[in-house]
Amino acid sequence: MPLSLQQVSEHSNDKSCWVIIKNKVYDVTEFLSEHPGGAKIILKYAGRDATSAYEPIHPPDALDKNLSPEKHLGDLDNDSVVELQVSRGNRQKSADEERMERAQATKPSINRILNLFEMEDVAKSVISNKAWAYYSSASDEEITRVENARAFSRFFFNARVMRAVGDCDPTTTVLGYKSAIPVFVSGAALAKLGHPLGEANITKGAGLSNIIQMVSSNASLSYAQIAASRVRPSQPLFFQLYKHKDDKTAEARIREAEQLGYNAIFLTVDAIVPGNRERDVRAGWDQEDVENVAEQGQEKTGADLPKKRDDMEELERDVDVKGTAGALIANDDTNMTWKKTIPWLRSKTKLPIVIKGIQCVDDAVLAAEAGCDGILISNHGGRQLEYSMPSMEVLYRLRRQHPEVFAKMEVYIDGGARRGSDVLKALCLGATAVGMGRPFLYAQSAYGAAGVVKIIRILQREIVMGMQLLGARTVKDLVPEMVERVDWQPISAKL
Amino acid sequence: MPLSLQQVSEHSNDKSCWVIIKNKVYDVTEFLSEHPGGAKIILKYAGRDATSAYEPIHPPDALDKNLSPEKHLGDLDNDSVVELQVSRGNRQKSADEERMERAQATKPSINRILNLFEMEDVAKSVISNKAWAYYSSASDEEITRVENARAFSRFFFNARVMRAVGDCDPTTTVLGYKSAIPVFVSGAALAKLGHPLGEANITKGAGLSNIIQMVSSNASLSYAQIAASRVRPSQPLFFQLYKHKDDKTAEARIREAEQLGYNAIFLTVDAIVPGNRERDVRAGWDQEDVENVAEQGQEKTGADLPKKRDDMEELERDVDVKGTAGALIANDDTNMTWKKTIPWLRSKTKLPIVIKGIQCVDDAVLAAEAGCDGILISNHGGRQLEYSMPSMEVLYRLRRQHPEVFAKMEVYIDGGARRGSDVLKALCLGATAVGMGRPFLYAQSAYGAAGVVKIIRILQREIVMGMQLLGARTVKDLVPEMVERVDWQPISAKL
Amino acid sequence: MPLSLQQVSEHSNDKSCWVIIKNKVYDVTEFLSEHPGGAKIILKYAGRDATSAYEPIHPPDALDKNLSPEKHLGDLDNDSVVELQVSRGNRQKSADEERMERAQATKPSINRILNLFEMEDVAKSVISNKAWAYYSSASDEEITRVENARAFSRFFFNARVMRAVGDCDPTTTVLGYKSAIPVFVSGAALAKLGHPLGEANITKGAGLSNIIQMVSSNASLSYAQIAASRVRPSQPLFFQLYKHKDDKTAEARIREAEQLGYNAIFLTVDAIVPGNRERDVRAGWDQEDVENVAEQGQEKTGADLPKKRDDMEELERDVDVKGTAGALIANDDTNMTWKKTIPWLRSKTKLPIVIKGIQCVDDAVLAAEAGCDGILISNHGGRQLEYSMPSMEVLYRLRRQHPEVFAKMEVYIDGGARRGSDVLKALCLGATAVGMGRPFLYAQSAYGAAGVVKIIRILQREIVMGMQLLGARTVKDLVPEMVERVDWQPISAKL
Amino acid sequence: MPLSLQQVSEHSNDKSCWVIIKNKVYDVTEFLSEHPGGAKIILKYAGRDATSAYEPIHPPDALDKNLSPEKHLGDLDNDSVVELQVSRGNRQKSADEERMERAQATKPSINRILNLFEMEDVAKSVISNKAWAYYSSASDEEITRVENARAFSRFFFNARVMRAVGDCDPTTTVLGYKSAIPVFVSGAALAKLGHPLGEANITKGAGLSNIIQMVSSNASLSYAQIAASRVRPSQPLFFQLYKHKDDKTAEARIREAEQLGYNAIFLTVDAIVPGNRERDVRAGWDQEDVENVAEQGQEKTGADLPKKRDDMEELERDVDVKGTAGALIANDDTNMTWKKTIPWLRSKTKLPIVIKGIQCVDDAVLAAEAGCDGILISNHGGRQLEYSMPSMEVLYRLRRQHPEVFAKMEVYIDGGARRGSDVLKALCLGATAVGMGRPFLYAQSAYGAAGVVKIIRILQREIVMGMQLLGARTVKDLVPEMVERVDWQPISAKL
Repeated sequence: MPLSLQQVSEHSNDKSCWVIIKNKVYDVTEFLSEHPGGAKIILKYAGRDATSAYEPIHPPDALDKNLSPEKHLGDLDNDSVVELQVSRGNRQKSADEERMERAQATKPSINRILNLFEMEDVAKSVISNKAWAYYSSASDEEITRVENARAFSRFFFNARVMRAVGDCDPTTTVLGYKSAIPVFVSGAALAKLGHPLGEANITKGAGLSNIIQMVSSNASLSYAQIAASRVRPSQPLFFQLYKHKDDKTAEARIREAEQLGYNAIFLTVDAIVPGNRERDVRAGWDQEDVENVAEQGQEKTGADLPKKRDDMEELERDVDVKGTAGALIANDDTNMTWKKTIPWLRSKTKLPIVIKGIQCVDDAVLAAEAGCDGILISNHGGRQLEYSMPSMEVLYRLRRQHPEVFAKMEVYIDGGARRGSDVLKALCLGATAVGMGRPFLYAQSAYGAAGVVKIIRILQREIVMGMQLLGARTVKDLVPEMVERVDWQPISAKL
Repeated sequence: MPLSLQQVSEHSNDKSCWVIIKNKVYDVTEFLSEHPGGAKIILKYAGRDATSAYEPIHPPDALDKNLSPEKHLGDLDNDSVVELQVSRGNRQKSADEERMERAQATKPSINRILNLFEMEDVAKSVISNKAWAYYSSASDEEITRVENARAFSRFFFNARVMRAVGDCDPTTTVLGYKSAIPVFVSGAALAKLGHPLGEANITKGAGLSNIIQMVSSNASLSYAQIAASRVRPSQPLFFQLYKHKDDKTAEARIREAEQLGYNAIFLTVDAIVPGNRERDVRAGWDQEDVENVAEQGQEKTGADLPKKRDDMEELERDVDVKGTAGALIANDDTNMTWKKTIPWLRSKTKLPIVIKGIQCVDDAVLAAEAGCDGILISNHGGRQLEYSMPSMEVLYRLRRQHPEVFAKMEVYIDGGARRGSDVLKALCLGATAVGMGRPFLYAQSAYGAAGVVKIIRILQREIVMGMQLLGARTVKDLVPEMVERVDWQPISAKL
Repeated sequence: MPLSLQQVSEHSNDKSCWVIIKNKVYDVTEFLSEHPGGAKIILKYAGRDATSAYEPIHPPDALDKNLSPEKHLGDLDNDSVVELQVSRGNRQKSADEERMERAQATKPSINRILNLFEMEDVAKSVISNKAWAYYSSASDEEITRVENARAFSRFFFNARVMRAVGDCDPTTTVLGYKSAIPVFVSGAALAKLGHPLGEANITKGAGLSNIIQMVSSNASLSYAQIAASRVRPSQPLFFQLYKHKDDKTAEARIREAEQLGYNAIFLTVDAIVPGNRERDVRAGWDQEDVENVAEQGQEKTGADLPKKRDDMEELERDVDVKGTAGALIANDDTNMTWKKTIPWLRSKTKLPIVIKGIQCVDDAVLAAEAGCDGILISNHGGRQLEYSMPSMEVLYRLRRQHPEVFAKMEVYIDGGARRGSDVLKALCLGATAVGMGRPFLYAQSAYGAAGVVKIIRILQREIVMGMQLLGARTVKDLVPEMVERVDWQPISAKL
Repeated sequence: MPLSLQQVSEHSNDKSCWVIIKNKVYDVTEFLSEHPGGAKIILKYAGRDATSAYEPIHPPDALDKNLSPEKHLGDLDNDSVVELQVSRGNRQKSADEERMERAQATKPSINRILNLFEMEDVAKSVISNKAWAYYSSASDEEITRVENARAFSRFFFNARVMRAVGDCDPTTTVLGYKSAIPVFVSGAALAKLGHPLGEANITKGAGLSNIIQMVSSNASLSYAQIAASRVRPSQPLFFQLYKHKDDKTAEARIREAEQLGYNAIFLTVDAIVPGNRERDVRAGWDQEDVENVAEQGQEKTGADLPKKRDDMEELERDVDVKGTAGALIANDDTNMTWKKTIPWLRSKTKLPIVIKGIQCVDDAVLAAEAGCDGILISNHGGRQLEYSMPSMEVLYRLRRQHPEVFAKMEVYIDGGARRGSDVLKALCLGATAVGMGRPFLYAQSAYGAAGVVKIIRILQREIVMGMQLLGARTVKDLVPEMVERVDWQPISAKL
């Protein structure tokens, strides 16, 4: 029998906690303690509709995977559905929502976007402050995020002239799969925060443009939905595995990816605990404050607080800051080792294995020795360990200290690349391809799948032009002698 | 029989496209597909007067060279000529045109210009936004343009004192031709964008001041007009060759240059495909928008667009961005090689051959081996390959790694030099002369031929003063020991 | 017999100078010439109440230690006490005091403080300008203060992955005493300037959080008061000794520290004469000007000065600038030597001896040879010798040039560390622990003892997260290979 | 017979040119072509009073030295003197003069000046724009001026502790003459531009403080006046010789200096031709424009110029830019050599000879070989050759490459030093003393002789404090090991 808003509202605390999601009612009382994001955020919606908070950051199968069937209490009754709709309609838009609507209506024609920085600007203008904070933030002072990009600017070209490059070919293969340009989508979570179609935009855009997408374990669509978004069955997809601390759960996740036709496993090792993304944390607090004001009809400013509060007592009410990242990986394995984890993974899958998150030369060598099929040199876009060596610098050191590694396995890098010239520099030093994460999140946020196609076109134009001006007809012609690390720091407009 | 505006207006689409240029009517229907700048820009003027858009960027012989005589349909009739004049007179000036007029009326006396930076400031104030964008823009983030200039600032002098320099002589020879100072005009296109007399201003100013001009293949005057602007028959001129992909066409161009008395061929190898000059592209769009508003009596802002446009469909209407540069070199040879092209060129001309656009040490060595008479180390002012090594840094590496090259052929550099001290640094390292491009475009834009004379005077004063304070009486006294590359980056006001 | 305000007011010059402090009357006539801060500042309060100026910068036992009993003239009479109270109540608050009150009332909840920089911001907002100037100022252009922090930013991590770090342990020992994290409180004077409870806040917070405090000789509480603030008798405290030029006085100070249970002596050698802290000096002048205005009912601006003053005469009235620092160490020993001072100190105490203020490699070696138990590499937070090598750079050089030193004694550094990552970098290079001074002054100024606990919690979170992402389970796993000094300067938001 | 204003006014062109200076009339017709500053500036005052323009930049004996007695036509008559006075009184003050008066009345008490930068700020506020431009300007982009100062900031101290420095002694000797601190006044011209008493302020201040002044050939007081300003007969003075191209004239100048008791000759070799000081030139033009407006009652803006002027014709009216510097050294010897000039100078004087203006290591070696008594490493404060190596960098290279030079002769440097720490760095590297020029011009401009005394006191305090914190009791204890050139660029507030 359908349930009413009134009935649901009687279960509004940690003793009995019901919530409404998409007009269905769920009993989450027992789940409270298991929720990776903590009980507090659920209890905020206890006894009422939680759809708007739930939907953008959970894949649709999350409820089925985490809640046993008997906790699915049933549908909301029709009157309640209508009442919810009306109350949503009456709700006043926040200042942030109004800004987003204005920006959406006046954003430039997609054909006027000249480069990835301009695409980012459009994205920033049309997405919520919270989404921007989650996408763009990085650890501490965000030095690693910035340095990832600056590292490219210290490499200049020794361009060759008088070479026949009229028939320039920028294609390559990644783990045997053809790619239109030496660029792939690096796993980046929660695409729905920026656009209602979420990761499917990226899958579609990548398929139409013939590049490969690595899909995050923490995608906001289910792995099945993403697989179903492919533009043709043969479109390759790579799976970014955040290994669950429980091997069985981890294995089930791998099994699911295999069955859906994913083509490789990228084991993520640079995010075993959450990084310190302060802008993300603060964005959460800001939104809380706005909602509190809206609900209570008044702003709770410092001036209204008791003047003589006891800071030590208040400190006791403190809870650890987590941010979005913390919730996503709360159950990940923090005790992986080369000796234990790689053999285990090999025993569970025949797919190629790539280690995602190598941050120094020595670990690159260990990965080759462990027989991995590839490594992705990455510091998670500067979102994890602040002052991790920029990816391009690690690649440069690896080329100089252990050139033999490039013959044993494929090497990719991500972090900070935004121009065709960045990609070419990495290829000159031996990288097979360059991953980009945020740029694809921004592109789909700004223009959906068309945005994704657009930035791939831009990169393709930049890469072909760059190869021709460098004197390279194919990616094989890109060699270490063509780049030189300089001893000064250019003034870059990219940062 | 003369044609009327009415008649012309009946041919306003790609099936039959007539345009009026300087009161003459041309049928360009068949030429549409051959136009290096694309059909779109011509169709904008289909059936009407195109003079104002055509004139500043085409040499006067462009129509004769590209359109067979039967497409020259004849003159406009008198009534139509008058009508066009009246409508031009009635046309309201754009904000940009009004700014230019004000600036022209209040610009400083030429005698108050102290250095090349101030000359640039005046030029910027008196030319159109579009001209400024074309002249000043460079690739991507314009890092190479900026770094070209910054590179000079890392070289300091070890000045010598107590040397007899009272009778200082800054003259030199370039390919055997006398030059008042070790500076020449580096090829730079489309001078008419900045001043109605165009390249002739430079030719006249260079002749009066006894320095040498290298003339671009893409000049906005014909090669003959430029040759005719010489202040005396013996005034030397160098020819910058953009080699056409068709050898016959290229040969014809060389032949014409020879017959007009040009004294050397500078084969351009750093611009076989157009660079990514985003400010130039955007300036074109901006002007389009302004014209659309003017024609339609209203601004087509984002707000007027259908809110729910389909970005993917819109993307399909996208055309590749080109900018002015793209149009100019659309038919150039992208398959030149040392083995094929140099012998071919030698077989076609007895003039000295200089390779313009060497960007690394190895290619400098190859040019010497190929028996070239000289090289111009250049990255096209940062307008082509972003992150190409700054010219001054290439020169520095060449001096250290292959000093023997300087004995085999003459070496020039261009890119970023703006002060006498910049010129002296390059000469200390072995350069015979330093090319400057934009400074001459700016000087003629600001004050015509007088501006050109003025900056040569300024450079002469700076060079003589610098030589005396360095302890050098002649250019032979400028030696590598006099410059030292330092390991810090000065704060430069030049950038 | 109690004394009246009228009686006191009759002793208002250097012939007979009485002052009131906390309703007691003192004859300081003979003390004028001995006052480390100079006679001038006392004479300003001659014949009246000096409590507000005296209290925040003197420990309570200062009067007993420095003034013989017969100069303690007795209590103020009741009427006078009341009169003083009334006049204090009537006094108008200064602009600075009003700003502080507003900031105190509206400061953020302590649970919203994310990092040490934000804590500093709150502190700056709630303390007086004078306190801020004393705490934050450094020598000359404050380059050393800034460079201390920037030095950390040139060290990047070579992070290791695939290591079992789930059970991460950040504890360590310092001179045998357990510490929850490898951080201790570095001696910093005059905590009462920022908070009425002063150093006791730090003692309590450190005790609650299990880290160790080094207590300054110049604390604004007495050593006994601080010892009494410990949260348990076994809480370790280190004693920062500013050695008095008179050995007997110095010995008495050591004896007192021992009797109070302090656990080590940190002999301060980087502040034998006061540094040139211009902001501190200027803050004193600014306050003087404000007080002069308040007393005289008008501002004494330049415009009111005689126009034709004689600058040479005025110069004669000049007195040497001192600032707060000068007064505190006026009687310190400027002739300490390795040969004389260390054996003397060893003969006076059995406590471990640490040299605080080592600023170069050679002195670190000398300290080890002298048999010290440890060194604290420190330039006094940039408050003493401008252009002293940043502590982190000294540590780096010591590790490369004399790694054997780390086996002979414990090595600490202070200066500029603000993040867990800074601490980890120092530990990788061999430091046992990192001292922080200003951060604890700011924390207690902002939120009392709770602020101190809060920043230790923040540091603990950052250190554990950093260790896990670096691949270190315990502090022993932090090794030199994990950090690399890079040849570029990151853009840091910390400065 | 006294002359009237009317009579004088009849000689107002280049055929007959009379001017009034300090109520005396001179016929300068024949002198016009000899005037180092050009005829134009004199003709501006032809037939009228020139005192205000003449006085601040000429020593009082300039007329006697340059004009034969018969050109001294006699006194102005009494009525004319009164009329001149009245007209001066009626003259409206310029905006710049009003600013200066206000600044003079409200400048801070001299006792509030904390460092040399603040002294400079006061000077800038109280002197004319023209004086500021002359004093502060340097060549081209003023990079060398800025880099002189920045060079010091790349040297950090390895400070030594535990040394007996209680009895610190900062005195030294320069060419055998005692100096209170290792600092001397480097020659700087035209002190009267900043203060009516001019160089005498510096002589008096230096004498009172026991440091040595080097007096410029281009001082605005006569050498005799300066000698007469000594506070005691034994006060040493050094003579900065700008060698006249005519040896006899040069010798006469040396003879005069010897007779006046000057104690050494500093032969200036870094300013044989004037540098390109654009701010100085522009300041002259600005003043001209202001005066033209004042005289003509209207501003001559660009808008009033004929719209269609011919830039080429106007260019012909151009005269070479000179600035103040050009005029001062127009007749100097540009053909000095080691072989010719040093023996000549030795033959003319027994005074010690110091070469002022050494800019590289090789010339320092040559000076030692030539038997000079010392060298002053100097690039003229960045006012001559732009991109001359900063003095501190030359000293550093000299110490590393030719340490033996320091044993053969004394080595001084000037350029950019403003703090005691700068002086100490130079002394550690082997300099005997450090010269400062602009700081003394600023100090005397701001407060006359008292200002000079004040900055010497400041420097003394900074030097003593620095020596004690460095571990040096005397200047002999300052050794190369105490400074280290670092590979990063501190952010300096000095620039």
